[in-house]
Amino acid sequence: MEQFLKEAKTASRVFNSLSGRDKNKILHEMANALRANTMDLIEANAIDMLEGEKNKLSSALMDRLFLDEERIESMAKAVEEIAALKEPVGRVLDGWLTEDGLKIEKVSIPIGVIGIIYESRPNVTSDTAALCFKSSNVCVLKGGKEAERSNKAIAKVLKAVLENHDLPTSLISLIPDSSREGVAKLIKMDKYVDLIIPRGGAGLIKFVSENATVSVVKHDKGQCHTYIDKDANIESAIKIAINAKVQRPGVCNAMETLLVDKTIAKEVLPLLKEAFDNANTQLKGCAKTQEIISVADATDADYDTEYLANILNLKVVEGVNGAIEHIIHFGSGHSEAIVTENITTAEKFLNNIDAAAVYVNASTRFTDGGAFGFGAEVGISTNKLHARGPMGIEGLTTYKYKIYGSGQIR
Amino acid sequence: MEQFLKEAKTASRVFNSLSGRDKNKILHEMANALRANTMDLIEANAIDMLEGEKNKLSSALMDRLFLDEERIESMAKAVEEIAALKEPVGRVLDGWLTEDGLKIEKVSIPIGVIGIIYESRPNVTSDTAALCFKSSNVCVLKGGKEAERSNKAIAKVLKAVLENHDLPTSLISLIPDSSREGVAKLIKMDKYVDLIIPRGGAGLIKFVSENATVSVVKHDKGQCHTYIDKDANIESAIKIAINAKVQRPGVCNAMETLLVDKTIAKEVLPLLKEAFDNANTQLKGCAKTQEIISVADATDADYDTEYLANILNLKVVEGVNGAIEHIIHFGSGHSEAIVTENITTAEKFLNNIDAAAVYVNASTRFTDGGAFGFGAEVGISTNKLHARGPMGIEGLTTYKYKIYGSGQIR
Repeated sequence: MEQFLKEAKTASRVFNSLSGRDKNKILHEMANALRANTMDLIEANAIDMLEGEKNKLSSALMDRLFLDEERIESMAKAVEEIAALKEPVGRVLDGWLTEDGLKIEKVSIPIGVIGIIYESRPNVTSDTAALCFKSSNVCVLKGGKEAERSNKAIAKVLKAVLENHDLPTSLISLIPDSSREGVAKLIKMDKYVDLIIPRGGAGLIKFVSENATVSVVKHDKGQCHTYIDKDANIESAIKIAINAKVQRPGVCNAMETLLVDKTIAKEVLPLLKEAFDNANTQLKGCAKTQEIISVADATDADYDTEYLANILNLKVVEGVNGAIEHIIHFGSGHSEAIVTENITTAEKFLNNIDAAAVYVNASTRFTDGGAFGFGAEVGISTNKLHARGPMGIEGLTTYKYKIYGSGQIR
Repeated sequence: MEQFLKEAKTASRVFNSLSGRDKNKILHEMANALRANTMDLIEANAIDMLEGEKNKLSSALMDRLFLDEERIESMAKAVEEIAALKEPVGRVLDGWLTEDGLKIEKVSIPIGVIGIIYESRPNVTSDTAALCFKSSNVCVLKGGKEAERSNKAIAKVLKAVLENHDLPTSLISLIPDSSREGVAKLIKMDKYVDLIIPRGGAGLIKFVSENATVSVVKHDKGQCHTYIDKDANIESAIKIAINAKVQRPGVCNAMETLLVDKTIAKEVLPLLKEAFDNANTQLKGCAKTQEIISVADATDADYDTEYLANILNLKVVEGVNGAIEHIIHFGSGHSEAIVTENITTAEKFLNNIDAAAVYVNASTRFTDGGAFGFGAEVGISTNKLHARGPMGIEGLTTYKYKIYGSGQIR
């Protein structure tokens, strides 16, 4: 592993001699190579699918794993979209003259070698490789075991394009040892690896956080809330609540708990029940909720659960302060929303809630790179530092200061 | 420890109801309280000094530890200067309308609870407390054992001001258990602590990096180089080299190794020897250096040593490429300089060297918050992410997205 990562680190230096035009040309060739090798990719994927059936993967997982012509075409398109992004490296982020007459330029640069740990969906392999290549980073990819053959086939196609250009194939690497032990080694190699991005379940994130000496940008839990204030537009509130829960329950920006101001609970809860019943949502609620509508009991454990399913907790709270208290206690700092027409209440919520994205009168479902207008996204960071919330390609860069003097000494 | 940190985390919420004016008023009162309690502080410090003498601390350490009226006055002034900084929290860093008509504001916010580990100089206690308070962060301070009484006395003065304003004294906290075990606990409390800033020796930094689950911004080694190119203005090069080594050898932005292009080595090395001899610098050199001037032998271990003393390694290299190779191998990513009049060579060096600060024709000694124009500085980060290089008060903030909608759903 050490030799492998050392090569990756050394390879990263070739980016110094690749122009943006070179990189984009190569990315377009990669997109076309994915298209040209569609049958090979489908064949490799078929073995993963067979294996998955044997191992009785859930239908959701099987669907995420599956590749066909259409999905490979969208992988290729995604690579082309990444090529079309503005050059992320070498941007002058800031600049000034110091009192000593030094000209300082703060310039964006690649992070270096980035280890990315992810699951099932094979398109993440080409997306991530392209994002890292575009931002002049070497990627070390560790995909899910269930997609091993698909990921290898995709990497092989991309590496062949690198070879055609006499570039080191280690610019796009699959981790050689994808066991837990291999990951344990990877996350301690701070000499060669500059950043680890774990995307996955709580167990993986915990393992990486506790054992990494490399910097980590986590992509984990979204325990998101929506609070309906007494000054809400009720009709809009119900639409927002339904959308936040139902439109795509399996994603991290979906709502898990709906908080309702007690002064409007009697009016709103029956309307909410009707709407959620129509959407086949399984409802749980606190004691006060159950005085008004008939739902199952919601425990503290429920308020702490990211269902990733069409299940919702309801809770009656004492105004915006009650909502803030609940969210401070149970929120995961991902996305939180208030529905209110009152500007003072809205600002109180916005200022007191510490989350990556805090919404007034909109669905938490908007927390992603696409909706934010960032273009292709690396993921949604739950880190508080470096990159917070939707992480665009800039999240794969850092900076240095270039300082131009004319003989200055102190 | 857990209860203590929980209180610190809870206390951080009072910043939501403190205006910038409130904070600045309190900081001015803190400065005056330091002045008013000068005699108490000197008394506490005297016990630390006696203890230090008993433990035979070096004269350099004793000097850093020492407090007198003048030094307490400059501590007070530093707090006032921090009060005068622009409000770092609530700045709108970016803002835009999305295609869905959501107004997104990216706003600076405090990080939360920051643990800071440092050594000897008691003024760091008041500086850091003031920087954290100004940026609405709770600080948990762990100073050096040798300054324990001084630090406690300073914290007591600051806490008394908080009490006068009915604010929780845990906004400015000293760690209750300052043993290695106490630190080990602190750096794993990611539930309550948002950032750890270790400033100190390699052992401390290694321990923190390997064991922390909290994010870490390191302040460690500066293995800085200056390269004199064949196209350098020699007179200027010698001045820059002398300044980088001699002006203050004990700091992290001082030069440890001077690289000289082989085509000018015969001309420049004798001049450098004369100048460094006059500055009482102890010189070591590679074999090629020793063919030209008489100096001790420099080993690979020497090239890897941060002397923090008036000792310098010399090395003859093959042009800018040789300099880049040496720096990639031995540099610590802190500050690196080239002296050249050739713009192509300069840009090659600037682009190929990955360090926080890369200089053309200036001394590496300029890498600090003051010289960069940042005002008060937290320190000089050797992290690649979050804050790199001189870390001003903005380094103590992160951001969130405030999103204003009008009923948008997906």
